[in-house]
Amino acid sequence: MLPFARVSIIGLGLIGSSIARAVRAHMPTVRLIGHDADPQVRATAERLQLCDDLADTAAAAVTDADLVILCVPVGAVGAVAREIADELAAEVVVTDVGSSKAGVAQALREALPGRAIVPAHPVAGTENSGPEAGFATLFHGRWCILTPVEESTGATERVQIFWERLGAQVETMTPEHHDLVLAVTSHLPHLIAYTIVGTASDLEEVTRSEVIKYSAGGFRDFTRIAASDPTMWRDVFLANKDAVLEMLQRFSEDLTALQRAIRWGDGDALHDLFTRTRTIRRSIVEQGQDDPAPDFGRRHD
Amino acid sequence: MLPFARVSIIGLGLIGSSIARAVRAHMPTVRLIGHDADPQVRATAERLQLCDDLADTAAAAVTDADLVILCVPVGAVGAVAREIADELAAEVVVTDVGSSKAGVAQALREALPGRAIVPAHPVAGTENSGPEAGFATLFHGRWCILTPVEESTGATERVQIFWERLGAQVETMTPEHHDLVLAVTSHLPHLIAYTIVGTASDLEEVTRSEVIKYSAGGFRDFTRIAASDPTMWRDVFLANKDAVLEMLQRFSEDLTALQRAIRWGDGDALHDLFTRTRTIRRSIVEQGQDDPAPDFGRRHD
Repeated sequence: MLPFARVSIIGLGLIGSSIARAVRAHMPTVRLIGHDADPQVRATAERLQLCDDLADTAAAAVTDADLVILCVPVGAVGAVAREIADELAAEVVVTDVGSSKAGVAQALREALPGRAIVPAHPVAGTENSGPEAGFATLFHGRWCILTPVEESTGATERVQIFWERLGAQVETMTPEHHDLVLAVTSHLPHLIAYTIVGTASDLEEVTRSEVIKYSAGGFRDFTRIAASDPTMWRDVFLANKDAVLEMLQRFSEDLTALQRAIRWGDGDALHDLFTRTRTIRRSIVEQGQDDPAPDFGRRHD
Repeated sequence: MLPFARVSIIGLGLIGSSIARAVRAHMPTVRLIGHDADPQVRATAERLQLCDDLADTAAAAVTDADLVILCVPVGAVGAVAREIADELAAEVVVTDVGSSKAGVAQALREALPGRAIVPAHPVAGTENSGPEAGFATLFHGRWCILTPVEESTGATERVQIFWERLGAQVETMTPEHHDLVLAVTSHLPHLIAYTIVGTASDLEEVTRSEVIKYSAGGFRDFTRIAASDPTMWRDVFLANKDAVLEMLQRFSEDLTALQRAIRWGDGDALHDLFTRTRTIRRSIVEQGQDDPAPDFGRRHD
């Protein structure tokens, strides 16, 4: 019944440690082997008992596994794949959790020729990083996108079952389409959030203390994703350059149109857009992709 | 001990109805008179018993009041002030809750010459609108900014006490400085959120259904404030045009610099900014201006 019996997780940050906890919660008989390049993270993982075994190298962590999950920044996937290539068991399935997929798929294919590879992206996370930030329910009700590069192995179906067991819903698409979709639903929002937080930090006439005090006017909503892991996001933007630049171009055109409407006092154009954008949130809440409580469910007491 | 005994609230939407509820909770002996231009809102306010009395016109609502609070879109403040001018009691204090202040201060001064005027802005809200969306604790721990135009009346101190009784902290500044500060902490974030939600709605290659499904990658954080009241926000952008355009210009420059870094693969520039922006969120949480729980405290179950 279990899709995999011996799962190796390389990288024990927010996502890797959440997978470990979710596997424990939902498939307790699975044997978990973990590794992280950072000795401090390994020590924390040991203390939290995230895995049955912790290995000192990525290669040592995979020898016995029937599923290997690379939970490292997308820029490191190729190097880690090369590091483990010679130690993998014959029937292993290799997957990842990276936020961009075309580059990752290519890197995995080149490093692991002939292997069963199923690139994956669970669309879930928080602004926190590291092994202590993870939790077992992170993937409940979220989507996990698979972008399989080989179709004949049955590996895709097993990875799908694995993610469904962790509470996720699974969708399959090409890596290229994934990268376009995520450019607008994830990468562009992060880029904009990082930018506005930077802009607000650099003002001369408004102090940083004022920005913080009056952030409840809207600004604080942007600071959450602008607190995400810098290395992870640097890699995403470099890896998904073309799609991000295209979405950025469209966004900039739309912003310029709005700027013009403000300059010329075109209230109708503003009101039209502001009315149109209300409906999307309703759909997101209806489809269970955000909290129905006002203000994201923040406490008001 | 009470700063005011008979409070008139003109406009019973999210903010007006929250003030009514908060007055009931914190100053139960205050007599509350309400009015809203929309008969449906008046009917709802009646059903919810938000006020002791509801008047059919703004003028009728203010005759007896020692504090009048205008809770209408900033573009309507001048007209409402003219409507009530002849009915105000001699010793009344007039205040408002608008998100821009220089234009409001001028409109109030022109419509109500010689009156005690204390323009105010409670920096609080949710994405919901209308009399049913309000709640008594909305202002707890939030800041309310006063931009007094007359200094000699003692009115400012009484309005300050009023807001402190509702649970807010109070700060005083000039209308012009307020408009600059809020342009970056509130108006620009709303403008950007409206824009990206519009951009995502208009794509040809990515469906709206995909945008909704994968919104947990970051996009959903923007949809909350892009669901705010369209009329309120149209008026804010038209009223605070100069400061908004200045902040927009700075933001666009910063975004262009980031776009260039992505195009040329300058990972260090990206990593530097992404590291810098992490610290601001920590300060916002430390100063009680956002929920300390990850993901804004959204439920994960």
